[in-house]
Amino acid sequence: MADLVLYDILGGDSTAPIAWAPNVWIVRYALHFKGLKYITEWVEFPDIESTCKKIGAGPTRYKDDGITPHYTLPVMYDASTSTVISDSTAIIAYLDKTYPQHPRVIPPEMGGLYAAFQDTVDEAFAKKAYRLTVYPTARLFGERGLEYYTRTREAVLGMKLEEAAPPGSKAREKTMQELEDGLRRVAGWYDKARPRVDGGEGSVVFIHGTQSPCFADLFVAVRLLWLKIGVGEGSEVWSRVLKLDQGRWAKFVEWFASEGYNVGQ
Amino acid sequence: MADLVLYDILGGDSTAPIAWAPNVWIVRYALHFKGLKYITEWVEFPDIESTCKKIGAGPTRYKDDGITPHYTLPVMYDASTSTVISDSTAIIAYLDKTYPQHPRVIPPEMGGLYAAFQDTVDEAFAKKAYRLTVYPTARLFGERGLEYYTRTREAVLGMKLEEAAPPGSKAREKTMQELEDGLRRVAGWYDKARPRVDGGEGSVVFIHGTQSPCFADLFVAVRLLWLKIGVGEGSEVWSRVLKLDQGRWAKFVEWFASEGYNVGQ
Repeated sequence: MADLVLYDILGGDSTAPIAWAPNVWIVRYALHFKGLKYITEWVEFPDIESTCKKIGAGPTRYKDDGITPHYTLPVMYDASTSTVISDSTAIIAYLDKTYPQHPRVIPPEMGGLYAAFQDTVDEAFAKKAYRLTVYPTARLFGERGLEYYTRTREAVLGMKLEEAAPPGSKAREKTMQELEDGLRRVAGWYDKARPRVDGGEGSVVFIHGTQSPCFADLFVAVRLLWLKIGVGEGSEVWSRVLKLDQGRWAKFVEWFASEGYNVGQ
Repeated sequence: MADLVLYDILGGDSTAPIAWAPNVWIVRYALHFKGLKYITEWVEFPDIESTCKKIGAGPTRYKDDGITPHYTLPVMYDASTSTVISDSTAIIAYLDKTYPQHPRVIPPEMGGLYAAFQDTVDEAFAKKAYRLTVYPTARLFGERGLEYYTRTREAVLGMKLEEAAPPGSKAREKTMQELEDGLRRVAGWYDKARPRVDGGEGSVVFIHGTQSPCFADLFVAVRLLWLKIGVGEGSEVWSRVLKLDQGRWAKFVEWFASEGYNVGQ
């Protein structure tokens, strides 16, 4: 049995769970990148806080009042060191430190640039993607999860989930175009990465111009995967993303799928 | 005599020129980084186009009509290869390619991440800095340069230069706070860079956590230098930047000054 247990928020139901949360997916991708085995412990939204308290996982931040602790997933438990870690960034740092014989996800000299890259990818397209995913993502939850998800997201949005980007609305088309513009901006950075994997048109490019991805590539891939799962593979949103830039992102996400990154464990 | 000639936009006057343009400064920093000697050819704003045409430098873009070529500085002339290059990014790429025995400014594997970093630094604080510098920068030009500078900048701004962020106005204070927030965001990325140069509090951190800067650090330093020259060293804006974050940026820009990066040649 694996020593590593990844606590993830249940999508689907316990007989056919669906991983959907981007901050948990980035840990899954990091685990795959390092070649570390793990098992998933599924937690329904309303049980996150009690589960964290039970296993001794700390809060990741405080609520708006500044004093009430706020608990989030992912949390990782490592039986081999009896350590519990909260927060995706802290988990990845822990894995790099504890398993140095496995490939390093964030080499020390890259921490600063990767942090800037994450911020700017989220600024360029993930914030726009959120408005498009927030409503369809609700379909992934059972009754208990749905109530929690809807209540907490609507409190932040200040509107009903279905009002975030209603199909056919001008607001939706505007958001979609901003998303496409953001992905073109990301593509522009990738175009500075040379050489391409096989030097040919349309081949997969990683941000270091190498044949294998680094953490920054994993981050982009996870944001795209989250969008795909949220809006649904058959949706108009996802089909427009796949068509962008001669199918660049279609090839990009397919690379990770074919390498087994999307296999939950 | 140096083989490299850097064409820069004249600030001050020809007896005491002041380099002020950020896109030229980044080339100066790159030349210093590589240890390449050069001389500067000063060009007044209204003479940029005729000078470019005379020396065979291409336009860097087209004007809004899509057909009229637009000429900008920096331009570099390399007598050793009889090459003329326009645009700071192209010049730096040329120098890296032509002088491989000198330190590489942009290693091939870093081109993508550095491009993203430049975009996001400009998004985080340089766009805000522009509103604060655009008016005081005008004091740097003689009569011919001033007319050209004012006319072209006001056309883009859609207002008088002095209306961009008038002293004492709420708009100015808002812009200043956005600038400070942006610099805090940049600082957050730097804080992910480990180890610090000497491990001590307040020491200079470069983005790779190394003791010497890379292109990304040069880019941040140049943006700060441009802000300092634009608003003036004795200004309230600059004194607030120097006080930020226990003087982090004061130490940062001082490092480059003490290493001779600001010496024009």
